[in-house]
Amino acid sequence: MNARRVLSGAGLDAAVRPTPSAISRFAPIGARDIRVTGGFWGERLRTNRERTIPYGLEQLRLAGNLANLKLAAGAHGRYRALGESAGTIFPFLDTDVYKWLEAVGWELGRAPDRVLNDAADDVIALVERAQRDDGYLNSYVQVVAPGREYDDLAWGHELYSFGHLIQAAIAWQRAVGDDRLLRVATRAADAVDRELGPGGRDGIDGHPEVEMALVELYRATGERRYLELAARMIDLRGHGLLGIGRYGSAYWQDHAPVREARTVTGHAVRQLYLDCGAVDVATELGDGQLLEAVVRRWHDMMETRTYLTGGLGSRHRDEAFGDPYELPPDQAYAETCASIASVMLAWRLLLATGDPAHADAIERTAFNGVLPGLSLEGTDFFYVNALQRRTERVDEDERSGTRKPWFACACCPPNVMRFLSSWQQYLATTDAGGVQLHQFFTGELTAERASGSIRISTATGYPWDGAVTVTILETPVEPWTLSLRVPAWSGSATLRNGTTEAVTMLPRARMIEETRRWQAGDALTLELDTAVRAIDPGRYVDAVRGCVALERGPLVYCIETADLPAGTVLEDVELDPSGATAAVARRDLSPTAIGVTAAGLIRSETGDHREIELNAIPYFTWANRTVEAMRVWIPRPADES
Amino acid sequence: MNARRVLSGAGLDAAVRPTPSAISRFAPIGARDIRVTGGFWGERLRTNRERTIPYGLEQLRLAGNLANLKLAAGAHGRYRALGESAGTIFPFLDTDVYKWLEAVGWELGRAPDRVLNDAADDVIALVERAQRDDGYLNSYVQVVAPGREYDDLAWGHELYSFGHLIQAAIAWQRAVGDDRLLRVATRAADAVDRELGPGGRDGIDGHPEVEMALVELYRATGERRYLELAARMIDLRGHGLLGIGRYGSAYWQDHAPVREARTVTGHAVRQLYLDCGAVDVATELGDGQLLEAVVRRWHDMMETRTYLTGGLGSRHRDEAFGDPYELPPDQAYAETCASIASVMLAWRLLLATGDPAHADAIERTAFNGVLPGLSLEGTDFFYVNALQRRTERVDEDERSGTRKPWFACACCPPNVMRFLSSWQQYLATTDAGGVQLHQFFTGELTAERASGSIRISTATGYPWDGAVTVTILETPVEPWTLSLRVPAWSGSATLRNGTTEAVTMLPRARMIEETRRWQAGDALTLELDTAVRAIDPGRYVDAVRGCVALERGPLVYCIETADLPAGTVLEDVELDPSGATAAVARRDLSPTAIGVTAAGLIRSETGDHREIELNAIPYFTWANRTVEAMRVWIPRPADES
Repeated sequence: MNARRVLSGAGLDAAVRPTPSAISRFAPIGARDIRVTGGFWGERLRTNRERTIPYGLEQLRLAGNLANLKLAAGAHGRYRALGESAGTIFPFLDTDVYKWLEAVGWELGRAPDRVLNDAADDVIALVERAQRDDGYLNSYVQVVAPGREYDDLAWGHELYSFGHLIQAAIAWQRAVGDDRLLRVATRAADAVDRELGPGGRDGIDGHPEVEMALVELYRATGERRYLELAARMIDLRGHGLLGIGRYGSAYWQDHAPVREARTVTGHAVRQLYLDCGAVDVATELGDGQLLEAVVRRWHDMMETRTYLTGGLGSRHRDEAFGDPYELPPDQAYAETCASIASVMLAWRLLLATGDPAHADAIERTAFNGVLPGLSLEGTDFFYVNALQRRTERVDEDERSGTRKPWFACACCPPNVMRFLSSWQQYLATTDAGGVQLHQFFTGELTAERASGSIRISTATGYPWDGAVTVTILETPVEPWTLSLRVPAWSGSATLRNGTTEAVTMLPRARMIEETRRWQAGDALTLELDTAVRAIDPGRYVDAVRGCVALERGPLVYCIETADLPAGTVLEDVELDPSGATAAVARRDLSPTAIGVTAAGLIRSETGDHREIELNAIPYFTWANRTVEAMRVWIPRPADES
Repeated sequence: MNARRVLSGAGLDAAVRPTPSAISRFAPIGARDIRVTGGFWGERLRTNRERTIPYGLEQLRLAGNLANLKLAAGAHGRYRALGESAGTIFPFLDTDVYKWLEAVGWELGRAPDRVLNDAADDVIALVERAQRDDGYLNSYVQVVAPGREYDDLAWGHELYSFGHLIQAAIAWQRAVGDDRLLRVATRAADAVDRELGPGGRDGIDGHPEVEMALVELYRATGERRYLELAARMIDLRGHGLLGIGRYGSAYWQDHAPVREARTVTGHAVRQLYLDCGAVDVATELGDGQLLEAVVRRWHDMMETRTYLTGGLGSRHRDEAFGDPYELPPDQAYAETCASIASVMLAWRLLLATGDPAHADAIERTAFNGVLPGLSLEGTDFFYVNALQRRTERVDEDERSGTRKPWFACACCPPNVMRFLSSWQQYLATTDAGGVQLHQFFTGELTAERASGSIRISTATGYPWDGAVTVTILETPVEPWTLSLRVPAWSGSATLRNGTTEAVTMLPRARMIEETRRWQAGDALTLELDTAVRAIDPGRYVDAVRGCVALERGPLVYCIETADLPAGTVLEDVELDPSGATAAVARRDLSPTAIGVTAAGLIRSETGDHREIELNAIPYFTWANRTVEAMRVWIPRPADES
């Protein structure tokens, strides 16, 4: 059971690699063919690797996730599945282990690490031992509710759990070339297929996830049954199989067929994971109608239900999308997992359609939706990412207020780990014409072509600085196109040393393309406009009417009490968007961080005001000092009418 | 068991009658000594009596509440306690029966009714049969969980249930002079006292309610043990006895001692019922410190956590108060029960302190917080009272969107019934100096004095008209003072035929006092200022910044799609608060209803606008026609800066 078969280099690849026959505008770059070597993301990835992932393993030990799997493998003891309150049972605790394994798989692909490797070997061996001979694997059911396999598809998270197992297996196969987990995952998928495949009963999981994983398993194994099982689950959804549950059938997207639903609804992570699976199925089956349904929902979601930070989900009660434009900053749910799922979906849509709007969304969400979920130190987490925290407030629950070292429902922390470990895969793509740089980082990438390798390096002070230099290290002889995304937030963009020094003034993202017969040593610099921007929320977002937010580059900014004059209550602060703004170094946050200053007012009880210079910090850095009040959306001075 | 002992007239009285030694600025008027005979409230009370209460009995039959009590009384069958979703158990279904009985008790005091009387007799007999010999009475525990009495005080609602039983008993004793339920309630209270009284263990209910009921039982029976039991429960709260449960200890106000907590927190109805009990205990024990704690919380609540409508509770997840000034209109919870509880609390504070601010709050909350909970027809109910409903919205859950015929958790409907049946008791008080009219209605009241009866009639077109005429029908010879509340909303007030033609311009409520040697036939008319008011939300209520609301008299207004030009989307409407306003008859809503017009704009996609006359209706009448979009807070035209 414990033998490792290391595949040949041919097995190494990226996650989400569409097969040759799939609908696909761009192709991903293999996990080992692109590297982040420094800069902003280098630092974030190092923190994840050196601090967060080892810390995560410790937490999985302390919280009982590993002990639970040992019980499933035959040990004796008490199963630990209690939620944060008496009476709540969490049957999905295995998935935190799988997400941690997925993170380690991608990490080991980025660079070897003996300690991490040995730790993961133990966990993989444990997962292997916990799996039943028939392929079934779920520690909760095996230990607490034996005989009740697939009994509670609505809430039991069994298929969701298999999905994360499969994704971990894919990471190990593609990044490390190790197929131990893939064999476990394949047996598990076969077990599901027997129960719920074409020959079995109709059943879908209350929490989508397995669909996209099954498509990946198809891609990794070539076994078409898995694709068909995923497609079957997409098709079965939306016909009321799950019942209305606690929150109505829209909560788990079972109210309307996936190819018909016009808007995102219900639990945000469920909707987003579902749509990831729908895109994967659609692209592999050439199902343009299904793909189009997801694209339509995505644009509607971006327009009507997305926070400035990229965060998704405005209702705490059911972790759900609300009405269009229902985007309260204080009661934002904006779960860290939802932002991660949003990046996963946008990436799939970018590969399928090539629309740079998806890459723009990835950037906004990664910086402002995912990163706030992790402290700068790397060992505290936000589950909920509010855009406002008041000076006076009610007692905080576990999921909000300040970052916490872990959660009873700890879906977010290991999700952040796997996100950062796979982040490099979201940065660039290739197609027959060349290479596309969607995100800006300091690093290197290689794209193999029949006529030779394209190898380029990139260097940037991004997101603090708007200049990105791309240097050609190796190139085939024939011409190819280097495409660089110009984000919608950049009012203008200049390409130095390009054929055209392009200047754009567009309200949406576009690609600048430079086609040449390249020479090694050629270098281009894209210069984006990092002027501070005062953002108007638009007239339909009721909850932040009369407010303005600050952005610079890809970052959303916020103000925190710690940066106000002593004794100032944050709720008395207003921002005059017509005043001067500036970028300032904020070495107190990090050696390279840039803050923003703007014209502020402090309004007194009587309505008088005094002018101050308002110091805003990147939203993702909030709550890393003394945690008091914070707000992203700042009231403008009210007119006196 | 079934014999009825009708007490002498001396037993007839009001609810919440402090004993002679209590802290008490004003005394209530006996339930039978004040009558609403016509006008606005006459119509609302008639609907409640003739439609809502009979309908309620039918619903209690259909929903199984009565059948459950029959099971407790020995019948065979399946207990019905399922909540709106599988897995949720409602152990408090008896209370809906008790609240219905309380309503009928007050109604029969207002006027006899054979059919209602016979129906209630059957229900009372059923309650008597269901009670165990040892006094315990809870159909859920008796049928589903025998032997687990007082086992789950946090969530079991057993004492809460006893509280509603006692309140029903009080109504029957004080309004009808019938003590059958009082005997049941006394036995139940004795059972609780044995278990949790000074000789028993420390225990409090997760849902306060029994505290105020026990004080009433003390007042009705003279048995001081009940007051001491109530005081014990108030004192035990706030020390963590209930644990942190699902939502933290503040959810059930167990985070801080009742006499120390500075703000309302957690589940709104729990907090308000608790504070009712605290006031009752404080006044009876002469505990000024405890009373002061409640007064302080009340003022803070009014200032920072009360909707314009008087509604309370801004979080759906835990039906809870949020942060100060966290008052989202769309996701307002503002449970109908919380508004009722708020009136009950304000009434107790008014009796104790005499501060007309409490009477102002009663008026605002009754018209705009409670009445919307019931359809004009009287047979559909809101549980949640949002101040905004969007044109496009997600699927509605049971508790919001449109009024529903009943609920799985049906606390609100019978609460509205008992509220309306006892409404007359909230209108006026007496003291040694005379009579105080706190609310305006068409009717009659009698206050007995040593030297003879004061009997007055009142007539008004209120709330549509601001004139209230008071006529002296009978008076003792010696002088006494008639006091009339001038609401804070009235910019000025004139007392015609008074000694002084008072004019006030105050931002808070006050009393106009007229002291005379009165003659039968004397008549005074108070004229309030019913000019339409454009209300600014103040700068701290983030969710409605840049908006304005319309009020006229005691009523909050709203706009509904049905009153917009065809094809207009409500979200495109703005209100220019500097434009002209007017009052207009709205016979489509009711024969006497008054609507409001204001200067509106319809903003197009491109930012152009056209001017319209905006027609607003009283908020309590919304969702009685085609239910589309609605909003109370309307955006002002944004400045163009």
